[in-house]
Amino acid sequence: MMATTDKKAKEGPRSKRRMILDAAIDNFGQVGFEHTKWATIAGQVGIGQTALYHYFESKSHCLLTIMSPELERSVERARKAAVDHDAPDQKLRAAIASAFDVTAREALQARILLSHQDLLVAPRPSEREEAERQRARELVRQIEQEWAAILRQGMDEGIFPERDEMVMVRLVLGLVNSVWRWYRPQGPRSLEEVSEIVADAVLRIVR
Amino acid sequence: MMATTDKKAKEGPRSKRRMILDAAIDNFGQVGFEHTKWATIAGQVGIGQTALYHYFESKSHCLLTIMSPELERSVERARKAAVDHDAPDQKLRAAIASAFDVTAREALQARILLSHQDLLVAPRPSEREEAERQRARELVRQIEQEWAAILRQGMDEGIFPERDEMVMVRLVLGLVNSVWRWYRPQGPRSLEEVSEIVADAVLRIVR
Repeated sequence: MMATTDKKAKEGPRSKRRMILDAAIDNFGQVGFEHTKWATIAGQVGIGQTALYHYFESKSHCLLTIMSPELERSVERARKAAVDHDAPDQKLRAAIASAFDVTAREALQARILLSHQDLLVAPRPSEREEAERQRARELVRQIEQEWAAILRQGMDEGIFPERDEMVMVRLVLGLVNSVWRWYRPQGPRSLEEVSEIVADAVLRIVR
Repeated sequence: MMATTDKKAKEGPRSKRRMILDAAIDNFGQVGFEHTKWATIAGQVGIGQTALYHYFESKSHCLLTIMSPELERSVERARKAAVDHDAPDQKLRAAIASAFDVTAREALQARILLSHQDLLVAPRPSEREEAERQRARELVRQIEQEWAAILRQGMDEGIFPERDEMVMVRLVLGLVNSVWRWYRPQGPRSLEEVSEIVADAVLRIVR
């Protein structure tokens, strides 16, 4: 009984928090961060602005909090691609395919992340924001390492020519992530088509 | 005489405007847009915040105004690369080399542009901001067209395989621009080295 009460007590604020994050993703992704008013999000979730500040101390804090789940997903997907396959070129193809195998909201989240990566560069003035920033930076580092390990394996096995794998990783991830800037669900290309074109481009770069 | 007076009268506010833009580029580029206080820029230029609003009605207006000269430079450089060379692969190499042949401040400007492209997506509430946004969008369109013309020429001449040139342009520009996210002047790679690596990668993608 205690457990149930605890769970309920926890789920209450958690699901409200989840609602805020979802509303923020929709607004930041569609209208842009700059353009989104904190009051709009409060209104959509059905709480007052004061209550909103209980969950996130600022719009930036909310934005930083949106980034980490997206980055965590990227780490996990790259890891899974590396485990599921043996050959480095197949690992790369799988990692790229999974990067584009996303829901509409995840696509928005990826675009928000791409558009606000500069938020991760400089230390944040508040403790909570800085904690989220550090978390996001560590995840970016992990993503780069996962992809670098695939490239390193390919170079060690002589399938990819020997090169600086960190520079190559940045070019490859730069190319993959740049899609979120221009891809739109209503555009002429499906995400599957884009994924194929990007995978071909990446394999041409690294081979 | 009249001309001289006119010029002087014009140069006065212009050079102050230039000082504001330079201070904004340095701050937005190094500390980040979110993190930069309007008061800091006013302080560095040596004017009050009220005077600052005479030039730019908001931080976003200033940010949008920073984008266009950088985009104009990109259009001109792509055009020059296309005119200076005959072969499409040489045009591409020249366009990439000129994209990385920049001053330290231009590099910051490129990073600011990359980090805030989402500002160009949705209409701005104010007339002056919206005018700057429209101008920047038109320049982005021109840049894409310049690069697309080079790719199209290569496809028509049978040097590059036939593909959707707009998708290819977006991948190529996505790759080229992504460098500004991670490149740092104090890093282990010079901009010349990075430029060479990117040019090789791009030619592998399009050929």
